[in-house]
Amino acid sequence: MQSLQDKASEWSGVAAADAFAIDDGNIFESLGGTPQPFVDLSTNFYTRSAIAPLFLDQRLSALIRTDLDFLLTSTRLIPGSNRVYEDEEEWFREIFSGSKKEDAIQNQYEFLIQRMGGPPLFSERRGHPALIGRHRPFLVTHRAAERWLHHMQQALDTTESIDADSKVKMMNFFRHTAYFLVAGNEMTRKQSQSVACKHATSKPAE
Amino acid sequence: MQSLQDKASEWSGVAAADAFAIDDGNIFESLGGTPQPFVDLSTNFYTRSAIAPLFLDQRLSALIRTDLDFLLTSTRLIPGSNRVYEDEEEWFREIFSGSKKEDAIQNQYEFLIQRMGGPPLFSERRGHPALIGRHRPFLVTHRAAERWLHHMQQALDTTESIDADSKVKMMNFFRHTAYFLVAGNEMTRKQSQSVACKHATSKPAE
Repeated sequence: MQSLQDKASEWSGVAAADAFAIDDGNIFESLGGTPQPFVDLSTNFYTRSAIAPLFLDQRLSALIRTDLDFLLTSTRLIPGSNRVYEDEEEWFREIFSGSKKEDAIQNQYEFLIQRMGGPPLFSERRGHPALIGRHRPFLVTHRAAERWLHHMQQALDTTESIDADSKVKMMNFFRHTAYFLVAGNEMTRKQSQSVACKHATSKPAE
Repeated sequence: MQSLQDKASEWSGVAAADAFAIDDGNIFESLGGTPQPFVDLSTNFYTRSAIAPLFLDQRLSALIRTDLDFLLTSTRLIPGSNRVYEDEEEWFREIFSGSKKEDAIQNQYEFLIQRMGGPPLFSERRGHPALIGRHRPFLVTHRAAERWLHHMQQALDTTESIDADSKVKMMNFFRHTAYFLVAGNEMTRKQSQSVACKHATSKPAE
């Protein structure tokens, strides 16, 4: 049987070694050892407006390094259209419809900071990433993966606080991970179906 | 709604801060920066024989640092009874019945090495840990968590290459994680049931 990893590599076109090249060095440290680049990226992923220049202000930058709450508050104040939440495809928008944008941004950047060598902010607040488990309610298809990656590529393109080399590594990680989740989602749905059918057959009158 | 993290803390009796105290330092480095303590632990978890003294041989230890394959081969050669695979409870044994002991040992110590600050051996070979997703096929109940923890406590007790302080931190992590998986398993099963019921109801004649 083909493993999740094999499927992810085949479908994404990214070998595991390239996907996990993010672990060759410490991306969090190489980007300055602050949450800012990841906050920029996740904000750009969910929000179309370019807010990066604001954070280049040195006084704000100093605040941000010690006060993530302030940062979250400030992102709420910045006007701008939504990227993912206003996607032209309804089926894609619906994946995000149950979560508040501010929460989605925080969940994503805390995960990314943790995964790229920074402090384990996500696990301290929410536990293990459990990527497949947490994506279980959504229909993570090849098409959904491509649309997510399309937005992430655009978000990366507009994030000035991340250098070109890190962007390549991160995109390889994202591409491989997106298809890993397609494979994982398929696997858990197949398992559920077999349970479901047995259950339905044994209790037909209910 | 209570989060997975809240349920894990309530059921395990371990606060998130204590569970993730493993991240306060780098346990992999503090244990010598080699796979050996983790290989010892996972071998002790699945195998009852005390193999630790063998690895204290300096020549073997040097080999082990550079050759995990050799190590795996050597663990296969050591006679000893099985711990988890020969558990007195059939329902617990069955959780492991589909996996080869050598694979189970390698999966566990590669995950632990990666999670405790060492090289990302697990992800390079198998992808994201995806703890909830990978445990989806098994009925991870409170009772199963306690039995798993019982064996892990015994395995830790007999692993001389791990110091007392690290053992406390690791056991807190294991206890919290075991119940995090109980909560995650419950969550994905509930999601499956609701899908299952809708499916069954709409196609009663099948």
